[in-house]
Amino acid sequence: MKLAIIFGGSSFEHEISIVSAITLKSVIKSHQLEFIFIDSSRDFYLIDSNNMKSKFFSSKEYLKKAKKLEISKGGFFTSGLFSNKKIEFDVALNLIHGRDGEDGKLASLLEFFNIKYIGPRVEASVISYNKLYTKLYANYLGVKVIDYKVLSIDDNRDLDLEYPVIIKPLRLGSSIGVSIIKSKDELDYALDVAFEFDNQVLIEPFIEGIKEYNLAGTYANGWHLSIIEEPTKEEFLDFDKKYLDFSRDERVNRANIDEALEEKIKESFKKIYKQTFEGAIIRCDFFVIDNEVYLNEINPIPGSMANYLFDDFNNILSLVATNLPTQKNIKIDYLYINNIQKAKGKA
Amino acid sequence: MKLAIIFGGSSFEHEISIVSAITLKSVIKSHQLEFIFIDSSRDFYLIDSNNMKSKFFSSKEYLKKAKKLEISKGGFFTSGLFSNKKIEFDVALNLIHGRDGEDGKLASLLEFFNIKYIGPRVEASVISYNKLYTKLYANYLGVKVIDYKVLSIDDNRDLDLEYPVIIKPLRLGSSIGVSIIKSKDELDYALDVAFEFDNQVLIEPFIEGIKEYNLAGTYANGWHLSIIEEPTKEEFLDFDKKYLDFSRDERVNRANIDEALEEKIKESFKKIYKQTFEGAIIRCDFFVIDNEVYLNEINPIPGSMANYLFDDFNNILSLVATNLPTQKNIKIDYLYINNIQKAKGKA
Repeated sequence: MKLAIIFGGSSFEHEISIVSAITLKSVIKSHQLEFIFIDSSRDFYLIDSNNMKSKFFSSKEYLKKAKKLEISKGGFFTSGLFSNKKIEFDVALNLIHGRDGEDGKLASLLEFFNIKYIGPRVEASVISYNKLYTKLYANYLGVKVIDYKVLSIDDNRDLDLEYPVIIKPLRLGSSIGVSIIKSKDELDYALDVAFEFDNQVLIEPFIEGIKEYNLAGTYANGWHLSIIEEPTKEEFLDFDKKYLDFSRDERVNRANIDEALEEKIKESFKKIYKQTFEGAIIRCDFFVIDNEVYLNEINPIPGSMANYLFDDFNNILSLVATNLPTQKNIKIDYLYINNIQKAKGKA
Repeated sequence: MKLAIIFGGSSFEHEISIVSAITLKSVIKSHQLEFIFIDSSRDFYLIDSNNMKSKFFSSKEYLKKAKKLEISKGGFFTSGLFSNKKIEFDVALNLIHGRDGEDGKLASLLEFFNIKYIGPRVEASVISYNKLYTKLYANYLGVKVIDYKVLSIDDNRDLDLEYPVIIKPLRLGSSIGVSIIKSKDELDYALDVAFEFDNQVLIEPFIEGIKEYNLAGTYANGWHLSIIEEPTKEEFLDFDKKYLDFSRDERVNRANIDEALEEKIKESFKKIYKQTFEGAIIRCDFFVIDNEVYLNEINPIPGSMANYLFDDFNNILSLVATNLPTQKNIKIDYLYINNIQKAKGKA
């Protein structure tokens, strides 16, 4: 199978997407790869595999050395004076973290232009990108979530909170703009930081020492779930640490939890995934409090695709690629217009 | 102002989008217009204003006579052998009803390619296109909704329902695939019909003679709400009737309701709109039961833009066009990659 990895994007997580792509280059052994980079101006470039080094991007060398592409019906094309050449691949992999990749925009482009892809569809993107919608969705499905409050940039900040709390921009991942604060004195500054990234923020109680478990998986003609990992963490993972996380390529150890809890976590994952996330390999991060499972967040495009959680990641990619959801074919017959024309005596 | 009306689309509501566009041609007097048609194959065409007649599309005359366009960074372009010519306009108006237009795909394309547009953004599209998400969203905001059940195509159909019920595909508008059924005998057939259009359906109690009120509006440097209309209806508006509705261009009469109820409806509209629907002119359809307001549905791209509900629709368009939400500019400085390279001794 030939896979086109799309990475970069106009996103605060642009750089970690580059790291993710470089990591996948070393992890994906069973498939051929093409690399399609979206730069901060949203131009597309075809990147030679030999140039898949972070410096090629940070030094802007790609501007001189990489071929520019256009996205259009059916795929990506290099534009020549007399001909457009199509980049050949079987399926694209959306590896853009954050804006453009996880907010539904790239999914929309790929779907509109009829390009097959691994990644969350538009609805799945919006539901996981906006943390409020994630809460509403999980709650509807009977998956518990931590209490929360949403605050908008123009709202009154005179809040009655029980500290410590964690403050997050409503629509970002990778811990960007996130603060944990222990008293009201710190509130204003933490809100200012979060509002730098979004005009709505999420406020949740911060529970010290909470147990966190990550599970990745997909549904592709059956369930394929990864091992459950208990990520190591400091007070919480800050951006630098999470950043390094995006370059992980070594298998991790299974969390030491009993079978009943493992089953609860898996059931929660399946509820979240089913119907909405088909076509994607996602990672859900759960909290466990008093043996109850709470959804923390859905990563519909996890760092380095959470490859390190799977026994056979290359095979998972094949399975998803051959079981992608399809768009309904809508036949337009102009029956109604013809009827109206008849009724008006125009036909 | 020069407005580019984008209509058609790969949608069950393709034809009513054409009717909407033809109607707007006659309604919009204060602005210049361009017409961009998306056909059922998702190709873009520039339509000469003189050809804005339904037969031009139903007869497929556009294939021979209209110029093909490409969407790309900054706008729509005709492709010539040696040059691409940009179609000049100030702002696009997304007038595609149903799939592609209301599901977030066109919004994504326009945003990605940095084309200014009037219409719902990606989140707003997903929240209003999926009727389950609309319910969860309204409920969160404290706007009442009618009870409901969601059924998936593979789910057991042995449901314990109180009849009559109304069955709708989860993601369509314009009454397509909708049935009202009075007993369990009719359930299977009605579900089959709805599942033709979506693999999830919404089931709600059908309340005979329920009062329905429509209100359109927008927030553009202040609230601009239309009059409230009580639409005339039969048992319920079927597709043919709603279809004709899309060609409405005459002002309607204000519903005969007391001020307190009017205020309640307006407050509900504002709750739904605020934060999420900026940039769009939407119509919300409400039910009133025992003087309580219930959201029925959000039409983020209403038929003929609900022009007939506004005193000065041309002015509303100007106001929205000059108060569009903007995308945050994300500067990518490669600070993290540079730091990592330093840490690894590679810089």
